[in-house]
Amino acid sequence: MAEVKLHGSWASPFSHRVIWALKIKGVNYEYIEEDLSNKSELLLKYNPVYKKIPVLVHGGKPIAESLVILEYIEETWPENPFLPSDPYERAMARFWIQFVEDKGPIFRAFFLSTGREEQEKAAKELLEVLKIIEEKALGDKKFFGGDTINLVDISYGVLAYWFKNVEEVIGIMVLEPNTLPRLHEWAQNFMEVAVIKETIPDRDKMLAYLRRVREKIVAEQSNK
Amino acid sequence: MAEVKLHGSWASPFSHRVIWALKIKGVNYEYIEEDLSNKSELLLKYNPVYKKIPVLVHGGKPIAESLVILEYIEETWPENPFLPSDPYERAMARFWIQFVEDKGPIFRAFFLSTGREEQEKAAKELLEVLKIIEEKALGDKKFFGGDTINLVDISYGVLAYWFKNVEEVIGIMVLEPNTLPRLHEWAQNFMEVAVIKETIPDRDKMLAYLRRVREKIVAEQSNK
Repeated sequence: MAEVKLHGSWASPFSHRVIWALKIKGVNYEYIEEDLSNKSELLLKYNPVYKKIPVLVHGGKPIAESLVILEYIEETWPENPFLPSDPYERAMARFWIQFVEDKGPIFRAFFLSTGREEQEKAAKELLEVLKIIEEKALGDKKFFGGDTINLVDISYGVLAYWFKNVEEVIGIMVLEPNTLPRLHEWAQNFMEVAVIKETIPDRDKMLAYLRRVREKIVAEQSNK
Repeated sequence: MAEVKLHGSWASPFSHRVIWALKIKGVNYEYIEEDLSNKSELLLKYNPVYKKIPVLVHGGKPIAESLVILEYIEETWPENPFLPSDPYERAMARFWIQFVEDKGPIFRAFFLSTGREEQEKAAKELLEVLKIIEEKALGDKKFFGGDTINLVDISYGVLAYWFKNVEEVIGIMVLEPNTLPRLHEWAQNFMEVAVIKETIPDRDKMLAYLRRVREKIVAEQSNK
């Protein structure tokens, strides 16, 4: 069997998407932690376009971009499928995965918001996005995939853990039992899935990391 | 066979992606032209999240977002495949399709740029993007798909025609034989493919439309 390697970063939700997918498929892989302030020659060679993690290397051939990697993993290791077999259901899964990608700037704006007014405005915009997800994508299901997690759950993992830490950094809670009861319960359930639970980064370390990254970007922006 | 309907707009490159894919597959469909200033009840019902065209309706079930629709078409009608069968080649195709999506804001900035300095800066940024596409995605191939067009060519169709019209509106040519010889030749070849040639919108009508849309958005932005 061809060797599988993953270049990632411990704090990245995008790395974790790939880690979860490989673990669900039962694929053995070597994990290579990248120092994002001093990226390896190999990473730059493997992903010359974006120079970003995660990069999956299978039999020496590199694949970049987490969603592209997830589709590759699904097609290469068909066991424990995480996309439905019906083309229409697959299209719905891809629609919702793309939806959260499209809303990336709204999540980023919340993370980088400063001053109470700006932060509350950003939180309100986010709440609208999360309400759409709860109502139209999740509905009454336990997971986006139904009784078990699928590609949508894996992609939305960032909401179940990273977002909770961002809320704490900003000091505004958005994804709460009273505002988004079903999505909140989903986050709880998702974090209890064995493969997720055993790979999630440490909370204190994550909070310190997010605070550091946020301060750096906010300082850079105010110097512009 | 279940009925296929497409809600689109004559000027939209995203509608054309779907039209080309259906024609390549030989799928019969009913085309419904939407007035984007007065969208139909059906469109709003079918795509409540984005309220945008294109929407493909297959047997009464709606699918939105052009790239999601393209994957659905490929999976539903396997004849004349436009994705390679090898998972790695499929991943590369999806990587490059995503690349042009990610660069959307750079194309938009060029389209909406005003004043010579801003326009030339936007053109320069775009040239860098197009150089990456020429060098790393196209290489020495006739089409991104090799000897025939594939999902990357279909997605990049906006470069072969719409972009040429945008260049004319702005008055700066970026995709030229001297700067991007191979990508320029690709655009010529792409426009000669029968299914493309027979569906491309009229040039004068398109130019007038782009000028009108551009003026409207620029005016709105300067009023903010």
